Amino acid sequence: MITRMSSLFLRTLREDPADAEVPSHKLLVRAGYVRRVAPGGYSWLPLGLKVLRRIEAIVREEMEAIGGQEIQFPALLPKEPYETSGRWTEYGPNLFRLKDRKGADYLLGPTHEELFALTVKGEYNSYKDYPVTLYQVQTKYRDEARPRAGVLRGREFVMKDSYSFDLDDAGLDASYARHRAAYIRIFERLGLDYVVVSATSGAMGGSASEEFLAVADTGEDTYVRSTESGYAANVEAVVTPAPPERAVEGRPEAQVHYTPGTPTIETLVDFLNGAGLGRTFTAADTLKNVLVKLREPGEKEWKLLGIGLPGDREVDLKRLEAAVEPAEVALLDEADFAANKFLVKGYIGPGALAAAGVRYLVDPRVVKGTAWVTGADKADHHVVDLLCGRDFMPDGTIEAAEVKEGDASPDGQGTLVAARGIEIGHIFQLGRKYTDAFQVDALGPDSKPVRITMGSYGIGISRLVAVIAEQHHDELGLVWPRAVAPADVHIVIAGKDETVAEGGERIASELSDRGARVLLDDRKASPGVKFADAELVGVPTILVVGRGLANGVVEVKDRGSGERVEVPVDGVVDHLLGLLGK
Amino acid sequence: MITRMSSLFLRTLREDPADAEVPSHKLLVRAGYVRRVAPGGYSWLPLGLKVLRRIEAIVREEMEAIGGQEIQFPALLPKEPYETSGRWTEYGPNLFRLKDRKGADYLLGPTHEELFALTVKGEYNSYKDYPVTLYQVQTKYRDEARPRAGVLRGREFVMKDSYSFDLDDAGLDASYARHRAAYIRIFERLGLDYVVVSATSGAMGGSASEEFLAVADTGEDTYVRSTESGYAANVEAVVTPAPPERAVEGRPEAQVHYTPGTPTIETLVDFLNGAGLGRTFTAADTLKNVLVKLREPGEKEWKLLGIGLPGDREVDLKRLEAAVEPAEVALLDEADFAANKFLVKGYIGPGALAAAGVRYLVDPRVVKGTAWVTGADKADHHVVDLLCGRDFMPDGTIEAAEVKEGDASPDGQGTLVAARGIEIGHIFQLGRKYTDAFQVDALGPDSKPVRITMGSYGIGISRLVAVIAEQHHDELGLVWPRAVAPADVHIVIAGKDETVAEGGERIASELSDRGARVLLDDRKASPGVKFADAELVGVPTILVVGRGLANGVVEVKDRGSGERVEVPVDGVVDHLLGLLGK
Repeated sequence: MITRMSSLFLRTLREDPADAEVPSHKLLVRAGYVRRVAPGGYSWLPLGLKVLRRIEAIVREEMEAIGGQEIQFPALLPKEPYETSGRWTEYGPNLFRLKDRKGADYLLGPTHEELFALTVKGEYNSYKDYPVTLYQVQTKYRDEARPRAGVLRGREFVMKDSYSFDLDDAGLDASYARHRAAYIRIFERLGLDYVVVSATSGAMGGSASEEFLAVADTGEDTYVRSTESGYAANVEAVVTPAPPERAVEGRPEAQVHYTPGTPTIETLVDFLNGAGLGRTFTAADTLKNVLVKLREPGEKEWKLLGIGLPGDREVDLKRLEAAVEPAEVALLDEADFAANKFLVKGYIGPGALAAAGVRYLVDPRVVKGTAWVTGADKADHHVVDLLCGRDFMPDGTIEAAEVKEGDASPDGQGTLVAARGIEIGHIFQLGRKYTDAFQVDALGPDSKPVRITMGSYGIGISRLVAVIAEQHHDELGLVWPRAVAPADVHIVIAGKDETVAEGGERIASELSDRGARVLLDDRKASPGVKFADAELVGVPTILVVGRGLANGVVEVKDRGSGERVEVPVDGVVDHLLGLLGK
Repeated sequence: MITRMSSLFLRTLREDPADAEVPSHKLLVRAGYVRRVAPGGYSWLPLGLKVLRRIEAIVREEMEAIGGQEIQFPALLPKEPYETSGRWTEYGPNLFRLKDRKGADYLLGPTHEELFALTVKGEYNSYKDYPVTLYQVQTKYRDEARPRAGVLRGREFVMKDSYSFDLDDAGLDASYARHRAAYIRIFERLGLDYVVVSATSGAMGGSASEEFLAVADTGEDTYVRSTESGYAANVEAVVTPAPPERAVEGRPEAQVHYTPGTPTIETLVDFLNGAGLGRTFTAADTLKNVLVKLREPGEKEWKLLGIGLPGDREVDLKRLEAAVEPAEVALLDEADFAANKFLVKGYIGPGALAAAGVRYLVDPRVVKGTAWVTGADKADHHVVDLLCGRDFMPDGTIEAAEVKEGDASPDGQGTLVAARGIEIGHIFQLGRKYTDAFQVDALGPDSKPVRITMGSYGIGISRLVAVIAEQHHDELGLVWPRAVAPADVHIVIAGKDETVAEGGERIASELSDRGARVLLDDRKASPGVKFADAELVGVPTILVVGRGLANGVVEVKDRGSGERVEVPVDGVVDHLLGLLGK
C-alpha cells in the first residue's frame, strides 16, 4: 500500500501545542496523529488511526491465541446492572450518566464486568460450557477530574477488556496465568519498557492483582522497586517485613513519665533525651497512635479505629484506604474528639483504646516483645518501655505506614527505591464479586449449582499510542517500533528532477507490490521540509531518493540510530524488505 | 482459521424471542448473533461480530478505492459546534444529551458534519489541499422514539459516515458521483436487492440527495416506483408532472352558484351533479384550498399559506413539510380563523386570499387555463369555471398533494406503485450549510478565500447485518452471502466414530491452512441438533462428514439451494475451495 503525502490528510506543526506538557502529547499533535476536540476527547487523524489499529491487531492476536473470543457490548448502558453491582454509586463523579427521552437512567460504560457476567449467565448453564474467556475492544468513558496529556488520560478511550469465567479457583489461576503471559507477549511485541507490579485492586474488589506499568518519568503512577531484585509493587501493595519477635520475660517494667509540652514526636524525643534516662531515643522508638473512623459498606455508622505505627513514619492515606477497602475511612474531626473524651490529643496510648473497646491495629514492625515510648492517655504524660504482647495486645496488623526509599525490599533482596510509570495493563482475579451479585451459576456434574469465578483483564489501547511515543522519540520527533509504525518505509523524493520522482515512484510500487506499506513524500515541498517531516512522523526506515540516483545510489536512513547508508538502487527493494524481515 | 463449536460462545435458541417481529430479528437472536441489552442496544456475540466486521471491511475497501481517508472522532462531543450549526436544538429529543462533572453540556454524536468541517478548517487552508474525502466507521447514537427490530433500528449503531470537501460545485458533483458508484459496488458485493431513490434531505439541508433502500416488505420507509421504468423516489421527492397549459381566450366566464350545505368536496360534487348544469363533475374538477401557517427559521411569527390542490387529493403532510423546509408548518386552529375573518371555512377561494395578501401556492396540476370549481369566499357559495391564469394568479406551485398508486411516473414511463424498503445508505450534497456555519474557506490561487462545499454520505453498517439477514433467510434459518458469512464452510461431524471425527478435523485443518475460515461442529451433540444449528447459523456451504467416510465420501450441501452432492473425500478440499473461488 502506498500512502501519498501529497494527498494525505496531514498538516505537521513546527510549534508545540500550548496545552501539551509531556513529549508524547507534543509530538502526536505536532506530527498530525491526533487533534483535541474536547477536554479528554481526541480525534484520530489518518496516521494516528493506523498506529491505533496496529496495536489493536496485536492485542487481538494474543487474545485469540489464549482462546479469547471477541464480542462487543454497547457503550450506552442501562443503570440497573450497575445498580445491582453497586458501581452506579461507587463510581461517583467518574461515571458519565444520562437520561433517555423517557427519563430512564443510562451510563456510558467505564468497564463491562456487569454485562459480561449477565451475558455468560444468559448463554451458559452447564459446567461443560466452562471455562470461557471473552473480550472486547471498545470505546470506554470515564469522567476524569483531570484529563491530561492528550490520549494518555482521556475521558473517551479505547480499551481491550477481557473476562475469564471458571468453575473454580484453580481454573481462575490458570486463566490469570494465561492472560499474564499474553500481556507480556503484547508489551514485548510493542517494544515497551515496563514492569509488572503487585497491585491492590481499587474499586474492583478481588484478590490477585498485578499492574503493568510502562516506565516513564512523566507517569502518574508511583511504584517502588528493589535495588537488587526484580521486585516491584504499587506503594499500596508493599508488604512490610516484620522483625523477629522477642521474649517479654525479664524486660524492664513500663514506666509513666511526666513529659510536659510534648504533644509531637519531635518534642517528645527531645524531652526524653534531655531527661537523664540513661539512653538515647529516636523517633523510631516511639509508637504514634493515629485515630481514624471507618464505615463498612452499607452501614450508616462510623466506628473508631486506632492505628499504632513507629513515630518516624506517617500514615499513608492511600495505603490505609487500600488496606481497609471496601470500608470507607475518614479522619476524626473536633466533634469526634468531643464525643470520645478518653482520647487525649497528643497523648493517646493503647491503654485507653483497649479500655474503650476501640479496635487497634498496628504496623507490622510492632511485633511481640518490641518496647515503645507512647502516650499515657493523660495530658503531658508518656509511658516508656511499653511492651507489645505484655503491656498491650493489638487486634492485628495493618499496612498503613508510609513506604520510604531505603526500606528493605519485601523479598529480602536490596532496598526499595521509588519510580514512576504509566499503567498500561491490569490483570486481576475478581473472584465472585459479580457472579454473586448476578447469581451466575453452572450446573455441576452432580446437578448442584457451582458459583462461577471471574478474572478481569484490561489494556488501555489508545493510551498505548501515547505510551509508546513517550518511550520512543527523540528531539526531532517520533521513532516508532516497527510493529506499530504507521508505515514500513518513508520514501522522500528529494529533488525536482523528473527522474528522481520516477525513481521514488518505482521503488514505492515495487515495495508495495511485495507487501510493504509505504509513505511516499511526493509533495512539491523542499527537501528540508520533507526531511523534517520524516523525522517528526517517525517511520523507522527513511529512504531518500535524490541526486545520487544519477549514480545509481539511494540513501537508507535508520530513524532511530540516525545511521545512513548508501545502497545501489538496483538492490534497494530487497535491502529494505530485509530490514522489515520480509 | 478454525472456530470450534465445542468452545464457541454460542447458544442457539429453538424459539423466537417474544419481542421480535421481523425475520432478521428473530433469526439473529435465535442463531446467537446478537443479544438485547437495552431498548435499541444490542451486544454482538462472536458470530455476529464476524459478520459486522466483514461488512466494515468491504465498506472500507470501497471507501479507500475512491480516495477516502479514515479518521475517527469521539462519540462524546461538546455542545458548542452543534449549537453553531443549530443541530443542538433541531435534533430535538433524538439527541442524547448529558453533562460532565463540571456541568458542561455534551451530546452523543448522531452524525459528525460539524466536527469534520471544523477539522478540515483546522488542517487545510490552501486551494491546493483540496479536494479531500474523509470517513469514519463509528458508533453513533440517536434516541429513537421507537427502537425496533433488533439491530435494524437501534439507538446505538455502527455507521460509516464520509464527507467530501470541494472547491466548487463541479467538484462536489464529481465527489458525489464517486460515492454513488462506491455505494453501488458495496451493496452489490453485499448481495443486496436495493433501489436508489431520489430523496429530500431531511434535517440536513442541501440539494442533490439519494437514498439507497433495501427492498423489504418489513421496511419502514415507503417509496414509489414506476411499473415500467427504473424510476424510484421517496414519496417526498416525487415531482408531479404538470399537464399542458391551455388557452384562456374564449373560455366560459366564471359563475358563482348558491350551493347550500356543501362544505365538503363530496357534498359539493353531489350538489353540482344534481343542479342541472348540463355536465358531470368529479372531485378532480374541484379546487380545494387548504390553509396552513409557516414559520421561517429564526422568525417568531407565523404567516398564512394557502395551498390549492385538486379536490380528489389530500395534503400529504410529509410532502408539505419537505416542500417548505427549513420553515416549520402547522395547521390553523380556531384562534387563527377568528383572527382572519375573511377565511370562510368550507368555502375558501383564491379571491379572498389574494385580497388579503396571503401567499397562495398550487399543486403542479393547476396550470394556466385549467378550470375549477372552488369556494366563493362566502358561506354556501361556490364558483364554477374559475380559470387559472385568468381569474386567479397563484404565487407558485408546491408539491404537497398526496401521491397515489396509479399516478403517472414523473419520467413519463408507466405509473407509480408503492413499495417498502429499509434505508441502508444516503448520499447528498450538503453544499455550504456547514462551511458557512464554520467559515471553512480555502485561499484560492488569487489569494481570495473560496468557501468550501461539502457532501455527506452514510451507510448504516450494523443495520446492514439485519438487512442482509432480512433478504437472505428461509424457514430454517439464515443464509449468508459468501461475502459476509461468519465462516466459509461449516463442517458437521455426524457420528461418534473416532475416524469420522478425525476425518472432519483433517479436512478442517487442510481448509484452514489453505486460507478458508472453518466453523467446525465438534460437539458431542446428535447429528440432528448439529444439522439444525447449521441451517440456523447460515454458513453458505455445509460439509457433512459422517458414515459415508468409510466409503470415502462426504456430503457437501449448499445452504441456499438445499442441493446435496456426495464428493470423494480425497478431492473435497479442492472442491470446497473451488466453491469459495479460492
